[in-house]
Amino acid sequence: MAYLNREAAQRLMEAEGLEALILFSAEAFAHATGASPGVATMWRREGAVAVLVPADAAVPETVVVSDLFAAGLRRESHIEDIRESPIWVEAMTLGDADPDAPLAPSFAGVWEADGRPAGNARPETFDPAVCYGHLRDALAEKGMRDARVGVEFTAVSARGYPELSAALAPAQLIDGTDIARQLRAVKAPEEIALLRSAVQVAETGIEAVRDAIAAGVSRNDLAAVWSEKVAVTGAETPMTGAWEYISVGPDPWGGNAVATPGDLVKVDVGCLMRGYTSDSGRTFVVGSPRRLQTELHAALMAGFHAGFDLLRPGVPLSEVHRAAQSAIRAKGLTGYSRGHFGHSLGTGPGSEEWPFISARAETRIESGMVLAFECPIYVTRLGGMIIEDQVEITEDGPVSMNRLPRDLVAC
Amino acid sequence: MAYLNREAAQRLMEAEGLEALILFSAEAFAHATGASPGVATMWRREGAVAVLVPADAAVPETVVVSDLFAAGLRRESHIEDIRESPIWVEAMTLGDADPDAPLAPSFAGVWEADGRPAGNARPETFDPAVCYGHLRDALAEKGMRDARVGVEFTAVSARGYPELSAALAPAQLIDGTDIARQLRAVKAPEEIALLRSAVQVAETGIEAVRDAIAAGVSRNDLAAVWSEKVAVTGAETPMTGAWEYISVGPDPWGGNAVATPGDLVKVDVGCLMRGYTSDSGRTFVVGSPRRLQTELHAALMAGFHAGFDLLRPGVPLSEVHRAAQSAIRAKGLTGYSRGHFGHSLGTGPGSEEWPFISARAETRIESGMVLAFECPIYVTRLGGMIIEDQVEITEDGPVSMNRLPRDLVAC
Repeated sequence: MAYLNREAAQRLMEAEGLEALILFSAEAFAHATGASPGVATMWRREGAVAVLVPADAAVPETVVVSDLFAAGLRRESHIEDIRESPIWVEAMTLGDADPDAPLAPSFAGVWEADGRPAGNARPETFDPAVCYGHLRDALAEKGMRDARVGVEFTAVSARGYPELSAALAPAQLIDGTDIARQLRAVKAPEEIALLRSAVQVAETGIEAVRDAIAAGVSRNDLAAVWSEKVAVTGAETPMTGAWEYISVGPDPWGGNAVATPGDLVKVDVGCLMRGYTSDSGRTFVVGSPRRLQTELHAALMAGFHAGFDLLRPGVPLSEVHRAAQSAIRAKGLTGYSRGHFGHSLGTGPGSEEWPFISARAETRIESGMVLAFECPIYVTRLGGMIIEDQVEITEDGPVSMNRLPRDLVAC
Repeated sequence: MAYLNREAAQRLMEAEGLEALILFSAEAFAHATGASPGVATMWRREGAVAVLVPADAAVPETVVVSDLFAAGLRRESHIEDIRESPIWVEAMTLGDADPDAPLAPSFAGVWEADGRPAGNARPETFDPAVCYGHLRDALAEKGMRDARVGVEFTAVSARGYPELSAALAPAQLIDGTDIARQLRAVKAPEEIALLRSAVQVAETGIEAVRDAIAAGVSRNDLAAVWSEKVAVTGAETPMTGAWEYISVGPDPWGGNAVATPGDLVKVDVGCLMRGYTSDSGRTFVVGSPRRLQTELHAALMAGFHAGFDLLRPGVPLSEVHRAAQSAIRAKGLTGYSRGHFGHSLGTGPGSEEWPFISARAETRIESGMVLAFECPIYVTRLGGMIIEDQVEITEDGPVSMNRLPRDLVAC
């Protein structure tokens, strides 16, 4: 299943005078193919995988993937032009070998049955030259040997660029990062479903943490409650990970604090489904809140409501930033200055992807985006607070994927 | 606490004619400072943090870090020259504000008490120009304005390089990645302790998985057992994460299979302590193994023993590769060809760091390295198998950090 919109890609490439786009990052690969990029992308180095997307939406894509993940890609992706690059992992199929016979000599034929010469050498990790050779061939086959090609430059290192550039010459490589990001920011229904499923599991974890909050409980206790709960809830899902920024007590950056009455507990957490991470946050208090805690949370809530209503197609993200920040400042946090009030979600490293809800973000919101919208504050000697929802943007406006109340909840 | 060996750095830089080394990656920052690089490195983009290491070991380092993580760095690092770069997170100290007074107007003074002008704007994420400005100033102050400077080019993107290069001109930037890697490959005692603690917690998880293996149990059930166990065991440690590659049954890449008698269960897992990941693996079988499973595991064990004994200072990693591969092939796996039989460990992305135990790795083993040494095989229609230990290299030879038996254990 492809998540990348070829028509949108064509529009964006034509506007920049590009004939094709080459994607190298694991997250761009996942978006363009709908399949796992595989273990060879763990180092986030250029040349482990690649997707060549011609500007002409009628011309099929070419994918380079590791030999280990080629079969999975053939199963999961619409893309038919799949070229392989061997990696370090030795794997084979049993073939005719008898599981109850002795290993020698019957196992010797396994490699040949697998269509591989015995004793071929595998690269230490992966070989970018093989990847670039496939891309060069594909460009030539498509009549684009000397084309202007957009490349995801943020996924190519200053060390690796000269080899890439030489391998694809005479094609001219232009920075195509912005196009790749724009395409990825609008999600396919399958991606939205994964993000929804991720936040649903995460909310079971937030509830478990809420129920475990009590004087005497440590931050690490609560982190363990979170991990255990989502491991259990997520067991029947394609969950691939979970993360937490839980803080307890007056120091928002205070390590393994033990909760005492009046302490804030900030729960900013996410689960990953096939690599797609959720991101949402809630704030609790042990017993009764202090007046300042209550009023600060109310200020964040004012910012949240002011921004949330603007999360609809056509609105520039900068307007959402201005609305949220102004509403919070109007409550007396006169110097409050967030760089961003949220971000897109996907399979990228970390939990925050472009675009950001920031003061200078001219990007307009589109239907199909999924944005984490957050109003946090971190006050040393008082504690950390956050209100954060994961929001699907629809033609009719914002639809939160969260169901837990956003209030400052006393536990 | 510094983990980077300044004398080794001086030797390596002098050999390349460099006057300084600039580190940008999160893992190089952690190694050079002994402290967390902070959230701004989540995108793995250049200019979020930096460490300037002069070749002359007598000249102090300069660090650029986010304002949010500066206090932590001052507490945890030996480095005194710390320069700040504002990030998107709004945080402050309560100061004299009264937690029981109303927010307005008392909270207005919080920013000034924190030494910051009210209403200053924060960057969307972080601002590389601020980071590069600090580096330029530091180079000038140290008389290295036009020096030959090694830069971790793998941590700089093709998109970001021109801005970096222009900002530091007339300094000449040379690829210093290899030097940075060599320095990081030799661990400080504190790093070794974190890696040991990580593998100790991981082995409690492996035991829990072993005890849960039975016909009818699914892969995801076992993954949940793993996650829950290490969350509990690791709760009082600085554990920052855990990962698992558990497979069940005849397809090593088979998703959520349910165990039946004769199935292999491969458990390749790790825990992270302050970002330092462990990596080790064991193999189990539901009930009695088939003959081929037993003999394949014995072949891997022969490779393991042949390679393990060579894990001592002075031995080129290529010799370990040759010994392990030859021993496995001698058992009848004539075509067996791994790209590497293991790797260094640290805080990098993924679980595998340079150097690798590969056929062409001329790097000689050094005391203080911590290597994951692994002999795996993945046979579709028979199952996956692995023997992997995490090994501390001492002057006297290899010391495994694992205590679980390496045998194919029937459950």
